[in-house]
Amino acid sequence: MNLKMQIQYDGTRYDGWQRQGNTANTIQGRLEAVLERIFGTYLEIHGAGRTDAGVHAAGQVANVHIPDELARVKWHGDTKSFEEALLMEMNRYLPEDIGITDIEAAAERFHSRLNAAGKVYCYRIGLPGRKNVFERRQIYPLDTGLDPEVMRRTADYLVGEHDFRGFCSGRNKKKSTVRRLDRIEIREADGELRILYQGNGFLYNMVRILTGTLIEAGQGRRSPESVLEILETGKRELAGYTVPARGLTLMRVLYH
Amino acid sequence: MNLKMQIQYDGTRYDGWQRQGNTANTIQGRLEAVLERIFGTYLEIHGAGRTDAGVHAAGQVANVHIPDELARVKWHGDTKSFEEALLMEMNRYLPEDIGITDIEAAAERFHSRLNAAGKVYCYRIGLPGRKNVFERRQIYPLDTGLDPEVMRRTADYLVGEHDFRGFCSGRNKKKSTVRRLDRIEIREADGELRILYQGNGFLYNMVRILTGTLIEAGQGRRSPESVLEILETGKRELAGYTVPARGLTLMRVLYH
Repeated sequence: MNLKMQIQYDGTRYDGWQRQGNTANTIQGRLEAVLERIFGTYLEIHGAGRTDAGVHAAGQVANVHIPDELARVKWHGDTKSFEEALLMEMNRYLPEDIGITDIEAAAERFHSRLNAAGKVYCYRIGLPGRKNVFERRQIYPLDTGLDPEVMRRTADYLVGEHDFRGFCSGRNKKKSTVRRLDRIEIREADGELRILYQGNGFLYNMVRILTGTLIEAGQGRRSPESVLEILETGKRELAGYTVPARGLTLMRVLYH
Repeated sequence: MNLKMQIQYDGTRYDGWQRQGNTANTIQGRLEAVLERIFGTYLEIHGAGRTDAGVHAAGQVANVHIPDELARVKWHGDTKSFEEALLMEMNRYLPEDIGITDIEAAAERFHSRLNAAGKVYCYRIGLPGRKNVFERRQIYPLDTGLDPEVMRRTADYLVGEHDFRGFCSGRNKKKSTVRRLDRIEIREADGELRILYQGNGFLYNMVRILTGTLIEAGQGRRSPESVLEILETGKRELAGYTVPARGLTLMRVLYH
């Protein structure tokens, strides 16, 4: 059977989503270790978004194929459904900063990443002199004020289908860097500024470089129009700085 | 001038609210150190609730008297109000897990603790197999199920004015242990159970012992009626265990 899972994590102490060689300190690695403990065999888990070190997720999606004979043996005769029993068991063994919020059976051919139609990310910026002590690990504190109107005007140039190669790090020249940004929403409330990004796909560090660029505009250090040249030339050095992973959360993965 | 402050903190790494001798590691101690840094002189801060080690606050209230001559000199000519400028400056110097959310001028005779008419505390319990990774430091994870209806019936016996000496630790026999509990609200949502307590005052460890007693009832380990004997005899050993500080948050302090 093929299971679709909704996953939350505080990425602070992890080296990102993707398992890398022997590094156990990744979200994927932790999830696979728990599955191996439960089923006694290695099962590969496929995540929709390969979040970087320090990036959080409120709604990461992953899928895993579990051989029917393994699923049949486990919790045989339990009153709970297999999915519910697995969710509880995984949460019991996972560390405190990784949690499963939902498990459901999916079509055999479902693949969390290849079938994803879009993703929603949120970047949270703490405004000067204000604090949110309970959510501080998900907020990047800034010590300068920002003009949200200038940031919105800048964002308007970025929405749409563009070649975003100027807004990514370590790009693979063989792969397309064209993506569609469906919306950028900038909201100010409770001493913070939240930037919501929805798009059909995001390049490596793209959200963090877009955010750094919007911050520079909001600080009056660049004009909204300055982003047009980055889109045209694709020059990374013209774009803003890469903001810290800390403020970034993968909110949702969208499917048709 | 007398200032009334609204304060938030994640109490995880502190030895509670109250300054104790040379221990700098208290919320009060940290706040006073920041005030001393700003004004160059020691100013005593009075908190409404002396929260224990590890207990959090979303709405602690404190007041501090600042000599007018000190207040006049600071931020003279600033466009912001004195209160706003002080709030920003305090948040800048305070550690990440302590924040000021509001400062306003109060009457000279206002005292945050002596004038408090009531307090609202919330205790959060994580239910088995469920997780909230982002708020885990404010939730006590329990590995057994709870029957909220039985807990509500137990709580009904506790609401009202009673001698709560059976529900406190290390009591001072010279002081009254009569308090009025105005409400206990038990809500289940998103894999957790929240217990809200509102009363005119709380004894040492009272919320945590009440919660331990309600949990035992919810687990079927004691009857709702068993709390009547605790109220009658005042015997601490008849009441439930003291749940960890971790799940407890001072939500609000009420004034007439």
